[in-house]
Amino acid sequence: MTNEFDADTAVDAVGMGSYRGTVTDRWSVAGRPNGGYLMAIALRAMGHATRHPDPMTMTAHFLRSPSPGPVDVDVDVLRAGRTVSTAQAALGRGGREFVRAIAAFGDLEAAEGPTVVDLKPPGLPVREDCVPIPGDGLMPDGSAATIMARFDVRAAPDAVGWVIGRPSVRSEMSGWVRFRDGREPDLLALVQMLDAFPPAVLAAGHPGSVPTIELTAHLRAHPAPGWLRYVSRTRALIDGYLEEEAELWDSEDRLVAQARQFARLAGAGEG
Amino acid sequence: MTNEFDADTAVDAVGMGSYRGTVTDRWSVAGRPNGGYLMAIALRAMGHATRHPDPMTMTAHFLRSPSPGPVDVDVDVLRAGRTVSTAQAALGRGGREFVRAIAAFGDLEAAEGPTVVDLKPPGLPVREDCVPIPGDGLMPDGSAATIMARFDVRAAPDAVGWVIGRPSVRSEMSGWVRFRDGREPDLLALVQMLDAFPPAVLAAGHPGSVPTIELTAHLRAHPAPGWLRYVSRTRALIDGYLEEEAELWDSEDRLVAQARQFARLAGAGEG
Repeated sequence: MTNEFDADTAVDAVGMGSYRGTVTDRWSVAGRPNGGYLMAIALRAMGHATRHPDPMTMTAHFLRSPSPGPVDVDVDVLRAGRTVSTAQAALGRGGREFVRAIAAFGDLEAAEGPTVVDLKPPGLPVREDCVPIPGDGLMPDGSAATIMARFDVRAAPDAVGWVIGRPSVRSEMSGWVRFRDGREPDLLALVQMLDAFPPAVLAAGHPGSVPTIELTAHLRAHPAPGWLRYVSRTRALIDGYLEEEAELWDSEDRLVAQARQFARLAGAGEG
Repeated sequence: MTNEFDADTAVDAVGMGSYRGTVTDRWSVAGRPNGGYLMAIALRAMGHATRHPDPMTMTAHFLRSPSPGPVDVDVDVLRAGRTVSTAQAALGRGGREFVRAIAAFGDLEAAEGPTVVDLKPPGLPVREDCVPIPGDGLMPDGSAATIMARFDVRAAPDAVGWVIGRPSVRSEMSGWVRFRDGREPDLLALVQMLDAFPPAVLAAGHPGSVPTIELTAHLRAHPAPGWLRYVSRTRALIDGYLEEEAELWDSEDRLVAQARQFARLAGAGEG
């Protein structure tokens, strides 16, 4: 395990349903470990505890933000069925819980049934015409985002105009993404990548931060190697609460992941 | 409590975080209690245990289908914050768990922040031009759906052509809904109503049943009295697994609830 993602999401079994991992400071935004990163650690532990190989749907509630350091993941397998297994994970430290998650696992390769996809990959400009997000982790507001040193993100120009004071008319974020160190995507990485871009609502020029309350990811297919295309949209911002839905498409034009989150737009300075 | 919904979702506290309710046979499809109904029972118990009044986002994983009868709901409050409380519920009987859920509660009336809704209510025909779903509970395939005696559903004609062998080109279901006994909608009822219509994928003529693996509901606003408008769509059916997203709009043209579920299209006869 020489790549950053596998190293930083690794867990060790320390007892029946008990795992231990380490939250590093390499996947943070403004000092807070990214939610998708915490989900990946929890999912890694759940995957050890369940019989089916592939996470298919995972919901995480973000209770508190951990500082970097060791974390415990306690996993309960709620059901071990023929086609689906369901597990719950509590990620915390010293009895203080940071993330509670539930996930259902299956075997996507063995799935049989009709395929009808009434969605298209986002119409992104070629990568040369997109905006590379600097890997030095310096954000427009001066805070540090170490996560940008892990991901090579090329944002669609429309999605990042807000950074220079030219917001988009829509709350939509899109771009290309892959790991900088060349690790190819898999289902676990998709969970992390679904949370790698800035919130879509920022594209429309709303100031502030967007703490996620709940995020649900659907993993739909094993991704092909190469770049992924990402798009997210917020269509309903109501009294400061919002939904954001996101899609990831692989290099073979297949929809590989979908997500929807419920979050709060915290006013600028409110934190 | 004279109306059916409040009577059939009532729970009694029987200990610290322990509640008892009764799953009746009045909200079933083909003998199986409806998922939205089970979510409403779990949410009722979670509401008793949390300080904040309004469920905002709830995820349920459906582990097994209960027969009618008493159920226990064990609630753990995971976090009691200033603006958001998070709780988990396990709904089961005799140690056998049927539903595991997590929900975040807040106070929607006290929420402050911008509102931008880039969605429109579904363009439904007037109710007189829609198709009333019979309340006698007899489904096209001969099975019984007692839930249809609880809800007054007027489906858009395009959405129910499949019943007479004329499926739609799209996996889209839509129509009007309210309780038959006149109970007005509230947040708890929205959770139930999000699961009151047939699966959208059936509209496109796919045969079979659609067991839900996971359903996440976002409650966005307290609904005004009167009829609600419902629309659901499946845009990604992949190897028999599907997502379905749904919206509920109230009589004042406000988006009051959104849902997304992950489900499996079980082949006709597979069950």
